[in-house]
Amino acid sequence: MFRKAVLVAGFLAVVSRVDALWPLPTTLSEGTSALRLSYGFHIAVSPSVGFPPLDLTEAIVQTQTYLLTDDLGRLVVGRGASDVSAFETAAYLSELTLTLKPGSEVNSITTEAQKPIEERDEAYTLSVPANGSAAVIEATSTLGLFRGLTTFSQLWYTYEGTIYAVNTPVEIDDTPAYPYRGLLLDTARNYFPVADILRTLDAMSWVKINEFHWHVVDSQSFPLEIPGYEELATYGAYGPGMVYTAADVENIVSYAGARGIDVLVEIDTPGHTAAIADAHPDYVACNDARPWADFANEPPAGQIRFATPDVASWTAGLFTAVSKMFPSSIVSTGGDEINQNCYEKDEPTMTILNATGEPFAEAFQNALNDFVGGTHSALKSAGKTPAVWEEMVLDFNLTLADDTLVLVWISSDDVKAVADKGFRIIHAASNYFYLDCGGGGWVGDYPAGDSWCDPFKTWQYSYTFDPLANLTSDQYHLIMGGQHNLWTEQSSASNLDPIVWPRAAASAELFWSGAGGNVTAALPRLHDASFRMQQRGVNSIPLQPLWCALRPFECDLTW
Amino acid sequence: MFRKAVLVAGFLAVVSRVDALWPLPTTLSEGTSALRLSYGFHIAVSPSVGFPPLDLTEAIVQTQTYLLTDDLGRLVVGRGASDVSAFETAAYLSELTLTLKPGSEVNSITTEAQKPIEERDEAYTLSVPANGSAAVIEATSTLGLFRGLTTFSQLWYTYEGTIYAVNTPVEIDDTPAYPYRGLLLDTARNYFPVADILRTLDAMSWVKINEFHWHVVDSQSFPLEIPGYEELATYGAYGPGMVYTAADVENIVSYAGARGIDVLVEIDTPGHTAAIADAHPDYVACNDARPWADFANEPPAGQIRFATPDVASWTAGLFTAVSKMFPSSIVSTGGDEINQNCYEKDEPTMTILNATGEPFAEAFQNALNDFVGGTHSALKSAGKTPAVWEEMVLDFNLTLADDTLVLVWISSDDVKAVADKGFRIIHAASNYFYLDCGGGGWVGDYPAGDSWCDPFKTWQYSYTFDPLANLTSDQYHLIMGGQHNLWTEQSSASNLDPIVWPRAAASAELFWSGAGGNVTAALPRLHDASFRMQQRGVNSIPLQPLWCALRPFECDLTW
Repeated sequence: MFRKAVLVAGFLAVVSRVDALWPLPTTLSEGTSALRLSYGFHIAVSPSVGFPPLDLTEAIVQTQTYLLTDDLGRLVVGRGASDVSAFETAAYLSELTLTLKPGSEVNSITTEAQKPIEERDEAYTLSVPANGSAAVIEATSTLGLFRGLTTFSQLWYTYEGTIYAVNTPVEIDDTPAYPYRGLLLDTARNYFPVADILRTLDAMSWVKINEFHWHVVDSQSFPLEIPGYEELATYGAYGPGMVYTAADVENIVSYAGARGIDVLVEIDTPGHTAAIADAHPDYVACNDARPWADFANEPPAGQIRFATPDVASWTAGLFTAVSKMFPSSIVSTGGDEINQNCYEKDEPTMTILNATGEPFAEAFQNALNDFVGGTHSALKSAGKTPAVWEEMVLDFNLTLADDTLVLVWISSDDVKAVADKGFRIIHAASNYFYLDCGGGGWVGDYPAGDSWCDPFKTWQYSYTFDPLANLTSDQYHLIMGGQHNLWTEQSSASNLDPIVWPRAAASAELFWSGAGGNVTAALPRLHDASFRMQQRGVNSIPLQPLWCALRPFECDLTW
Repeated sequence: MFRKAVLVAGFLAVVSRVDALWPLPTTLSEGTSALRLSYGFHIAVSPSVGFPPLDLTEAIVQTQTYLLTDDLGRLVVGRGASDVSAFETAAYLSELTLTLKPGSEVNSITTEAQKPIEERDEAYTLSVPANGSAAVIEATSTLGLFRGLTTFSQLWYTYEGTIYAVNTPVEIDDTPAYPYRGLLLDTARNYFPVADILRTLDAMSWVKINEFHWHVVDSQSFPLEIPGYEELATYGAYGPGMVYTAADVENIVSYAGARGIDVLVEIDTPGHTAAIADAHPDYVACNDARPWADFANEPPAGQIRFATPDVASWTAGLFTAVSKMFPSSIVSTGGDEINQNCYEKDEPTMTILNATGEPFAEAFQNALNDFVGGTHSALKSAGKTPAVWEEMVLDFNLTLADDTLVLVWISSDDVKAVADKGFRIIHAASNYFYLDCGGGGWVGDYPAGDSWCDPFKTWQYSYTFDPLANLTSDQYHLIMGGQHNLWTEQSSASNLDPIVWPRAAASAELFWSGAGGNVTAALPRLHDASFRMQQRGVNSIPLQPLWCALRPFECDLTW
């Protein structure tokens, strides 16, 4: 309730001040004094940090670069002309100091970002005095310092060469409401060059998203080169230039880590695996069977023969190999949209299931349980926690470890049922967080052309989602956070930025700042975040005519 | 009926051949022989053309460049690997000849494109023999030759350095079903750099769109620099770097003309004119009045004081000046969304209307008739035909010239009423052709966040529009064609390409090839058009996973 009160106060105050920060910090106090960035401005690391980790040093350099190159005019009429009288007599800030509290362990940002969800420490305080004394970011981890740097870089505007803030003194004490804030990208329906993924990781870090859920392979293509399993990409990728090599993965993982982002890789099983048949036709049931709609939710049909012991152990081995490529504590085994008819029509599977002497449903369930048990046991041996899609919990009676993370995608209405089973939950529901909805259907021979998850999910709608809806208070601790998802049947590098940004910033703030935000108050800040992204080379779209963006609230319906 | 038969035949044939051409030519006969482009390939101009106009020479060079640089792999599994055996023994094409039929007048492409709608001659024939003899494009205008060059460039694919076609001999006889095929871009809600407009003109020309409807100014900003009226942009543009100078306009108009595109400029009046108040506050009623929703459909409110004689004659003068900047035979005076309440609350307007002694409605109507008569008379003197939005015909009883072009935007249901009044019509209805619909509402303080014209207009939906619906056969001749429209409350250079392409190609084919097209048969060709756009630097989006794009019809629901 306190936070809501702060928001309301903030709403009144920001009209005449600054609408800069996204996500909104836990507590924020702003003044009304301008402050200029000195030409000699530098970011110093206090002795508490010792010899700074390389990625922290890189983050410092990057922050200094953003300060100099953002060149963002303030979103007011005149783009800052009216600030001149305020800043031309303002003090100069020449130092920002990064400090770790006594007793803090000094790790790289990467190491901190890749810790298990509950162990991540992203809290920081930021103090920017109005008189030119050094600004200070204090934290108990380098990851906290990094989040503070991100916030600091959002305070500054440029007008005719002067880089200045208008709201000092600033005092911020900030920590995320939820430890998991993600973005899912599907690189299997259409391929995305590494450069586009890296740019997306940058944008994610600007709004403090800390998890890249990489749905890397699917039935349409298998672009991941896995040591020991290279044949999967050789035969299953869209083409030789459309593969993520082991070196690409290392690059992506370390680029993410240095930006406070963990990479949760997903090898969806046993469904969504037709592409495996390109290298191993014997491992896949109903491969490219037709009519595809009888065998899969999307063409081509094809699912791992999970009941075949050799295939199950091969798949477990695959997860062991994948685990070595990704330092994250979490790996997703998928588990969505299993098509039973595919297996019922598959002779090898039916022979095995029939041999059990059990009724089909029971034999199916037991074999699936063994299969998932095998992949999860491989993950456990590799030190990983498994993540699964909701069907694994709701549609089957599987023996899953208590710490399994469950992603709810079909509908937010399913959250309660997952919570009732006691699993930890990541919100990813199609009715709130699917970035691809509402853009038209992609299936051919379908003149109606609508999309299965119409309508378009607006930022406003995602932003006002209640993560705790329908839950009892003793279930609240199960909610780890949430994520926007980009399934890419109709996306590629061509529209990656505009379909993701700034919408994905809505869940980033929801799960960092907590629920209860107000779209009216948020809009000016979201404009600011979107324009800053554009200045940094990300094609985030405008939410309103520029006329409106320069005049907070004047394009509100009730103005 | 004949055309439909051809389409069905085409549908069967293309499954195993090529899905290249967009829009589909009037008649097309294809063979099954491969043909290679010779290293010495050149495009020759026959003596019938005489000394070729500069823009034709440029178009030839551009076509040769596309042939060499498109580097488009055929959209089949293997991207052309399976074509090698066919093309490695194929003949080489070393010449394409451009010929004008005897008696043809030789003008520049630009001159032909800027002719009045009914006088444009875009017809051509294209013959590409399979044996390596010269290919020939024949037409009766350079504009026809240009359309033929565009078609020719769509026949070619590249595989490992070999540029080849797979469907020769090709015989095409092509002419548009409708003379007007447009795209509207609003550069007032958000500004678009000139380079983005030029790139859009290129893409338009690739699908034979021949009209750029430039909604250049509106209430939010006035980015057009008009000689003699420079103050409008000086005060009304978003900023000094966000103005289309007279030189920019000349550049855009000539770039368009050389690509077979006419530029229809729109100065929307008397509504949508708040930005004029930045320079001339006395000319505008209810400027920025609040609540804006009482005075306008979008903020800021503000409409020209059309009843004031000085303002009316100033506006007529403005149209005279604008007419000089744009060689097109058409200029739009707009006329949509006139808010009557704005005028009822405007003392100067009411004083004038009351002085007539007529009842309000009659005085309003008469003053509006005088105002529109004045602007249209200025256009007529400048040799222009006026275009207007549908309200000018349906909501008011104005004296409009018979040749006035009427754009129907509110709903395609309104077409019949406009036809009943005998006016020529351009289809631009929001329920079929608005590219901005379904992307979420942009008005602030509106948590529902939906868009007024939901849902998203899919290419499938636009493509199956019937231009002659509800009309009697004697009204068919009134339909000049149609256009997609991009209103840019939520668009900028950030998402211009992905929001327009390939969707706008749907209306381009509908109005070139005629109605009755089938989305199932069209999809492979639209993939081809979209991928070729990407190869040429336009961020057209994928309509399906690449898996589907490489396997025509296999992602159809019924496959």
